[in-house]
Amino acid sequence: MKIEEVVRRALRIVKPTSGEREKLRRVAERALNLAKSTSSRFDGVTGISIEGSAAKDTWIRGRAEADIFIHFDPKIPKEELEKRIVELGSDVIRRLGGAPRLMYADHPYVEGLIDGVTVDIVACYDVEPPNWISATDRTPYHTRYVIENLKKGQEDEVRLLKGFMIGCGVYGAEIKVRGFSGYLTELLVLAYGSFLEVLKAAATWRPPTIIDIKQYYSSPEEVGELFRDSRLIVIDPVDRARNVAAAVSKTRLSEFLLASKIFLKKPSLKFFEKEEKEKVRASDVRKLSRERHFIYLFFKILEEKPPDVLWGELRHSGEGVKRALERLGFKVYRSGSWTDERRYCLLIFEVDRTSLPRYALHRGPPLYLRNAEEFVELWTRRGIGPWIDGDRAYVLRARDETRANKLLKNGIEQNEVAISRGLVDYVKSGKIGDDLEQLIKIAKKNDGLLKFLVGFLEARPSFLRR
Amino acid sequence: MKIEEVVRRALRIVKPTSGEREKLRRVAERALNLAKSTSSRFDGVTGISIEGSAAKDTWIRGRAEADIFIHFDPKIPKEELEKRIVELGSDVIRRLGGAPRLMYADHPYVEGLIDGVTVDIVACYDVEPPNWISATDRTPYHTRYVIENLKKGQEDEVRLLKGFMIGCGVYGAEIKVRGFSGYLTELLVLAYGSFLEVLKAAATWRPPTIIDIKQYYSSPEEVGELFRDSRLIVIDPVDRARNVAAAVSKTRLSEFLLASKIFLKKPSLKFFEKEEKEKVRASDVRKLSRERHFIYLFFKILEEKPPDVLWGELRHSGEGVKRALERLGFKVYRSGSWTDERRYCLLIFEVDRTSLPRYALHRGPPLYLRNAEEFVELWTRRGIGPWIDGDRAYVLRARDETRANKLLKNGIEQNEVAISRGLVDYVKSGKIGDDLEQLIKIAKKNDGLLKFLVGFLEARPSFLRR
Repeated sequence: MKIEEVVRRALRIVKPTSGEREKLRRVAERALNLAKSTSSRFDGVTGISIEGSAAKDTWIRGRAEADIFIHFDPKIPKEELEKRIVELGSDVIRRLGGAPRLMYADHPYVEGLIDGVTVDIVACYDVEPPNWISATDRTPYHTRYVIENLKKGQEDEVRLLKGFMIGCGVYGAEIKVRGFSGYLTELLVLAYGSFLEVLKAAATWRPPTIIDIKQYYSSPEEVGELFRDSRLIVIDPVDRARNVAAAVSKTRLSEFLLASKIFLKKPSLKFFEKEEKEKVRASDVRKLSRERHFIYLFFKILEEKPPDVLWGELRHSGEGVKRALERLGFKVYRSGSWTDERRYCLLIFEVDRTSLPRYALHRGPPLYLRNAEEFVELWTRRGIGPWIDGDRAYVLRARDETRANKLLKNGIEQNEVAISRGLVDYVKSGKIGDDLEQLIKIAKKNDGLLKFLVGFLEARPSFLRR
Repeated sequence: MKIEEVVRRALRIVKPTSGEREKLRRVAERALNLAKSTSSRFDGVTGISIEGSAAKDTWIRGRAEADIFIHFDPKIPKEELEKRIVELGSDVIRRLGGAPRLMYADHPYVEGLIDGVTVDIVACYDVEPPNWISATDRTPYHTRYVIENLKKGQEDEVRLLKGFMIGCGVYGAEIKVRGFSGYLTELLVLAYGSFLEVLKAAATWRPPTIIDIKQYYSSPEEVGELFRDSRLIVIDPVDRARNVAAAVSKTRLSEFLLASKIFLKKPSLKFFEKEEKEKVRASDVRKLSRERHFIYLFFKILEEKPPDVLWGELRHSGEGVKRALERLGFKVYRSGSWTDERRYCLLIFEVDRTSLPRYALHRGPPLYLRNAEEFVELWTRRGIGPWIDGDRAYVLRARDETRANKLLKNGIEQNEVAISRGLVDYVKSGKIGDDLEQLIKIAKKNDGLLKFLVGFLEARPSFLRR
């Protein structure tokens, strides 16, 4: 299929139907009106607006979202604002007939699913740039900037880019993904003109890539200096001090680069089709895991946490466990984390082996040093050796414990493993294993976990799968 | 026991009996006379002398040696001299009733065992310092220097030092040991005065240690510059350009330092008693090797080689195999080599494990590089992955072979392992194993091998054993 034909068909996938449009319009209007009437009960509200993809008409099929922003007077203290938005938001969602859920990225907001439309009730301060107080204060300016600058037809280019990024697993600024935000896709289309031009550009991106639409800076060196260690720097048109791509992880960026390169070479609709495993079976896990080695931590959390918090803790804890395993002498090939965002969590690591040799080499000081014989005398009574090689004495020290899961468990019990405070008690009460069979037993009753396991074992991005 | 008492008793161990003295005197005289009469048949002989420990009266009990030096005119070409000494030496040994054996370090000499006395017939050139032609030309000067400078009674101090070094396994300049030569022990006693003073000094040696008895050099810097990378530098009183300790390996030097420190702290006769394992059993090997891992090469050589050549080849090949094992991904804790110096050879390595995991991590190029997708496309068809982590793609590559001995065998067959040319064919026809049981089966019929194995598994110098 030619690339133009693929793009033409992809548009059908990403473009909302008129029915969907109508529904979003209706839900958004109701939400807006309810927010208006409800907010009259609260002090300090200076305005109400619809922001985000609904306002910019860049939302895509199946992802209708209404972001209702409540603007507050900057004099209201942050804590007070947070309290009010939780109360106000919950009230609005309930009145819309939904179940309010407390969410937060940088500060809290309330979410509800109304008639297939995600409604977010978000607070922001009514400020002028650059006097930002909270992380959402820029949003109204972002909405306005995109609306004013996106040319007719470019909304669909944004939709294609979003659809492509969703299909490739790199879309979404939430902690779970650490990918591209909606605003970022819009800026990319503004910078390059179209979906395909964004991909063509991305295929040639070399770090640091600098996109400064409003030409705030006079040289790449100036930008590089300001945003060190960033692979992709997209200067926010409404805030020259902000990199819109700051939250994009290196991995997601690389995946997007790779997907762009491959799509341009071999265009295919699979890049837009969200991978959906139909039938995964326990036997797939068994087959895929043959002659491979894993260590996993499976545990239950006994409280509700906003997804961003939970995923952040999982990521942080996963990195801590990885470092601990490496410190213990294991090679960690890769790691993964999963949660149903309610109760069950899994951290899993593919390793070179699940146990260490009984004996480890232990090196003594150079023998010409004062008191070097003390090492020798000490170890002559234990271990194997000491023998001398070159300047030093060595011994083989017997390990009491050799299995990775046991070693890790001991480390965690002694608080030597950097696990998030919010998870450590759950981890301690959980299971640390090296035998996938036990995990399969659990996964047989949990389809989400089973799907995750198969995906983790396949170990490739969805666009490389078929 | 007090140190003086230990030394007093040790002297009894190292001092030759009057019967031994008489025997050495007789054998040396006969050898000297036979060498004189035989050498009259050869051109260019300018003199005959007795050198070494017999001449200096520094030999020790059980190690009677007569070094008969045949002095040649410097005009005789080296090849011709080597031919003549082999012929002449063999003739003398035969006439003494012995079986001549061709030996060589730097150049050939002939050895025979006569009535318990080792007789060496060695060639040197009759030259004045520093016009040395062959490695043995200095020897007569060494003998003279020691005789002229060793004070009455210091012969016994040399004997104690030699006995101590033998007991600790650091005596002997031959390639098998790479330890301290007899001449070096004599210079140490000359430098420090007595056996105990040598040990006290050694316990404080810090590299580089410089001993310049005749004060040829004005500063340590000058010496350090000249003998770089040497831990111990003993300037030869008869040749200021030569380090008498050049052939002492770092390991033997460190062992001597350690033995000195421990002996001074806890004096004991065990430092003088050559370790003699009485009853070693196959079950000792089994017991000692439990939960440890080994790779070994056992092979037969089908030609006679001088020990220095064979040990040199074994050392070199052992290092080559060690590097190969490390390249393959194994940790080599320690290595050992053994030979009966006639037929059987063993190289053995203690390793962390005897096989690798089936899958190895394989890292691709950063994905922002041109053509990085080619790596991904290639590996999507093989192995596990690719997945993206940070800037790069990774895959797990399946190894065809995972066992160390098989991998090593393949490497050797493809001449990728640095094994001495003189051994490589024998190694290829030999056995490369990871199961000590098979080696035990051989060792049951070979007491020398069995003793070596037990010693290798115990992995400590003899002076730490009891």
